[in-house]
Amino acid sequence: MEKFELHILGCGSALPTLKHAPSSQIINLRDKLFMIDCGEGTQVQMRHTGLHFSRLNHIFISHLHGDHCFGLIGLISTFGMMGRTAQLHLYSPGTMLEQILKPQLEFFCKDMAYEVVFHSFSPNHSETIYDDRSVTVKTLPLKHNVPCCGFFFEEKPQLPHIRKDMIDFLKIPIFEINRIKAGGDWTDTEGKIWKHEQLTIPTPPGRKYAYVSDTMPNEKLIDIISGCDLLYHEATFAENEKARAKETNHSTARQAAEFAVMAQVKKLAIGHFSARYDDDKILQKEAKDVFPNVILCHEKMKIVL
Amino acid sequence: MEKFELHILGCGSALPTLKHAPSSQIINLRDKLFMIDCGEGTQVQMRHTGLHFSRLNHIFISHLHGDHCFGLIGLISTFGMMGRTAQLHLYSPGTMLEQILKPQLEFFCKDMAYEVVFHSFSPNHSETIYDDRSVTVKTLPLKHNVPCCGFFFEEKPQLPHIRKDMIDFLKIPIFEINRIKAGGDWTDTEGKIWKHEQLTIPTPPGRKYAYVSDTMPNEKLIDIISGCDLLYHEATFAENEKARAKETNHSTARQAAEFAVMAQVKKLAIGHFSARYDDDKILQKEAKDVFPNVILCHEKMKIVL
Repeated sequence: MEKFELHILGCGSALPTLKHAPSSQIINLRDKLFMIDCGEGTQVQMRHTGLHFSRLNHIFISHLHGDHCFGLIGLISTFGMMGRTAQLHLYSPGTMLEQILKPQLEFFCKDMAYEVVFHSFSPNHSETIYDDRSVTVKTLPLKHNVPCCGFFFEEKPQLPHIRKDMIDFLKIPIFEINRIKAGGDWTDTEGKIWKHEQLTIPTPPGRKYAYVSDTMPNEKLIDIISGCDLLYHEATFAENEKARAKETNHSTARQAAEFAVMAQVKKLAIGHFSARYDDDKILQKEAKDVFPNVILCHEKMKIVL
Repeated sequence: MEKFELHILGCGSALPTLKHAPSSQIINLRDKLFMIDCGEGTQVQMRHTGLHFSRLNHIFISHLHGDHCFGLIGLISTFGMMGRTAQLHLYSPGTMLEQILKPQLEFFCKDMAYEVVFHSFSPNHSETIYDDRSVTVKTLPLKHNVPCCGFFFEEKPQLPHIRKDMIDFLKIPIFEINRIKAGGDWTDTEGKIWKHEQLTIPTPPGRKYAYVSDTMPNEKLIDIISGCDLLYHEATFAENEKARAKETNHSTARQAAEFAVMAQVKKLAIGHFSARYDDDKILQKEAKDVFPNVILCHEKMKIVL
């Protein structure tokens, strides 16, 4: 299977501590990197992964709270100093990110050899904001106290594998293989047609990843992300802080798990932990009471889809 | 002796790496904290020291390159979330810091219960920018490619210690002690005058610390900082990169040491290391060839003056 990995760079909430970095993660999909959120210190967290900065061309920002975007200016500046020339695309709700970052870029990064391209999306409805031959990225409107969206990564199915035994048996030339993988049939020298399905082995369906943070539980998303392979859902609080969660437009670990059950996801990863918990395992325990397959995120963790 | 400690939070240059955080340090002078520079990640570096955020009321920014100020917005925001109410004073050359930070504060930190007060100073001449009963802080104009100043901390001498044997012998009442420490004499019941000098033991002279980064060697500073207890001088490059140092308005380790010799300082601490050195010891070695008392800075180091 080709790579579809999630790297947790930070899974704390509100502010960086000695235990957690603020929100940021990287999706490595077939060696293309996509970043979601970029709290302070993200560039150093990314160095810990060993992933190459040059493979990152797209950053998706869920909302404009500091713990999700204060690391951008440093990351952008570092890319400039390292001689980057490829455009860097930033996606965020509305145009405020551009309004806030542009003056900083003009002052601190004016001699950079690459361009930062701003893309805005509406926080009010789900839309496709990125599409290439491997993946589609859709927004997931969330219920937070500022405009906020999660992101849904849908991998496109890979081309089927060619059946080498059939290629050898039928003496099909190499240059025909890509055509056949893409759906073509083969007609042999006697005029017999061999169907695409006879010549190939199907690949598994595309994998799906949903990032849902920061938000109160939002049932409206269920139709979109239903059955996805991995759901990252914020779990800022434990159940005894349920009132506080509601007040601050966040979720409890149990609520994240209840949402995972409703959306029938395969795996749930929880993060965005409040700094009040000395041991995050309480959050995993509360989630597991409702949904069995819970991953407790931590920095430098890699989750393979 | 009362506290006069220097905490190195970051001593790398240009960008944060796995080895060094960008420039930041804290002076702990009699339990008042003063920060110099604030690169990305400074708030987490400060947490490592165990020093209390609430004791920090003054931050001095040498110049507006990202590796000296990108950590400010996160630090300010965190202080707000932690319920700070005391004013935070920022000192920087000119008014650009305020122009850059104000819109960010208005957007990200609008509900904070404390005020950020901006103070600007001229990068062209040395001036006193802070003064209290323990310390005076002066600027040190530097030779960099943007307006830039170092900082000179001059501790005020502590009041002399009272001679307990004399107090007992002369039966001087407790409430007279502070007056005598502050310079007063004592007249006994027979009218005999006991001089301040007979009643007290002098304390050592105030200690002096100079922060000199980023800059080419700048002999104009020698008169000001001459004989100081500790000089922190940037040593971005080794001697084989002397041309590069000049081109980028930085210093080599050897130049830092030559400056230390000319200024007759007691100790030299070097920092602001380029990321190109796998082992910074080469820089210490080159400096020690010229000046014996060289401290090679690293993160989490505490230097006692």
